[in-house]
Amino acid sequence: MSTYRQRLKNITAQRGNLCVGIDPHASLLSSWGLPLTASGLERCARGIVDALGEVVAVFKPQAAFFERYGSVGVGVLEKVIADIRAAGALSIVDAKRGDIGSTMEAYAEAYLGPDSPLAGDAVTLSPYLGFGSLMPAFERAIAYDRGVYVLARTSNPEGAQVQLALGREGSVVQEIIDAARQLNTTARTRAIGLVVGGTHASLACDVSEFNGSILVPGIGTQGGRLEDLPDLFGAAWGNVLPMVGRSILKAGPDASALRAKVDTFTLA
Amino acid sequence: MSTYRQRLKNITAQRGNLCVGIDPHASLLSSWGLPLTASGLERCARGIVDALGEVVAVFKPQAAFFERYGSVGVGVLEKVIADIRAAGALSIVDAKRGDIGSTMEAYAEAYLGPDSPLAGDAVTLSPYLGFGSLMPAFERAIAYDRGVYVLARTSNPEGAQVQLALGREGSVVQEIIDAARQLNTTARTRAIGLVVGGTHASLACDVSEFNGSILVPGIGTQGGRLEDLPDLFGAAWGNVLPMVGRSILKAGPDASALRAKVDTFTLA
Repeated sequence: MSTYRQRLKNITAQRGNLCVGIDPHASLLSSWGLPLTASGLERCARGIVDALGEVVAVFKPQAAFFERYGSVGVGVLEKVIADIRAAGALSIVDAKRGDIGSTMEAYAEAYLGPDSPLAGDAVTLSPYLGFGSLMPAFERAIAYDRGVYVLARTSNPEGAQVQLALGREGSVVQEIIDAARQLNTTARTRAIGLVVGGTHASLACDVSEFNGSILVPGIGTQGGRLEDLPDLFGAAWGNVLPMVGRSILKAGPDASALRAKVDTFTLA
Repeated sequence: MSTYRQRLKNITAQRGNLCVGIDPHASLLSSWGLPLTASGLERCARGIVDALGEVVAVFKPQAAFFERYGSVGVGVLEKVIADIRAAGALSIVDAKRGDIGSTMEAYAEAYLGPDSPLAGDAVTLSPYLGFGSLMPAFERAIAYDRGVYVLARTSNPEGAQVQLALGREGSVVQEIIDAARQLNTTARTRAIGLVVGGTHASLACDVSEFNGSILVPGIGTQGGRLEDLPDLFGAAWGNVLPMVGRSILKAGPDASALRAKVDTFTLA
């Protein structure tokens, strides 16, 4: 298997660099005329992949909306991950996991392991327990040719409380960016990516030298604009993977309406 | 239903204030002679509750070890939560979830909702996206008479990078402690708890006025000592719920050996 970065490069060259969020929240199920059950969840989430799986490069299923229906919902997430793979697209499982030691190892095996049904091509991680606590996931991403995206600067206003606090070497977010860049220089796969929200007028951190993939949520309903991202990310723009969720999904469930909406999120 | 705090007070008055971690990691399954499968997971995790469910006050199943076996493993977690309830004990699901907006609402419904199979008596939360981002969980914990434990100062050395960084009002950990205390003063249920590791010689934060439950991991194998906690926590000692995992579990699978080991973690 090629590395995550190579697969990402290949698929975005063919399909463009958009990531579509699979966010089957209650109001989406209702607007699609589906029941608020695991069955409604399955029809919505798999319907998104049915409609867009062969035209969109990357999907980001949000774990919370599956866990909402317990283990049955998590079983639907497994099917969605398999559907995405079968359609030739990539999946980033948005789980925001973070823990220590053997617990972190278990999360890493669950979301990055070669034979785990919950493992997509990449997973999101949360660094409240310190960047170094995520090392078991970094090691497995590198070993298994998968990717991780570490939360750095999130799209919501409350995030500044933690992310812009000052650590020993600079802000928390800058320490995380720099540590991830450093790790990518030592591993051939550049498997370590970042999550940096696209809603900010200024990022308040420097990602210009970052050498991995940058997932950028917050485009569309949350207020970020695709056309602002090249200026916002400057030299790092080539590494940006913009993510759009609700703005596209609300056009469904009609497949052609979903595909038409995706086309409006393509930069000329 | 009484509030989480009331249930916690009642059960710890009867059984003592120990929380036992349900950590069915690979090496534990092996040492218990169990296969590294969902079936081995189930025998281990439910075996712990079988042996200790009627003598221990609180259990903390670790979600990662269940997710390791995919949706089938998550189904085992649901059974374990039900077993704990049936035994008259309380459960804190250690999931360390944290997200924003409707995603956080979905996690809150999954782990605190009245009819969710993954909802125990309380859940752990991670505040990398800011304390305020967790509000949907706080609201539901209060409404549904359940509890939350927000990661504040974790037991691992890497945690200092984020947790001791300086925000506007003090360190990140202190801002979280103060915000949680403030929220507890306005809600009758005092549903907001904290996670503060017991491995530190000094906490580097002030929890002395904290008015909710404080879950203290890191006792035993990680190096924290039960007998040091009264001094370490001072005036907040009465709110402390010490958590022991591996040091007890490695005595299994024999039920009487597990029970004997629990007795060694009781303060005179």
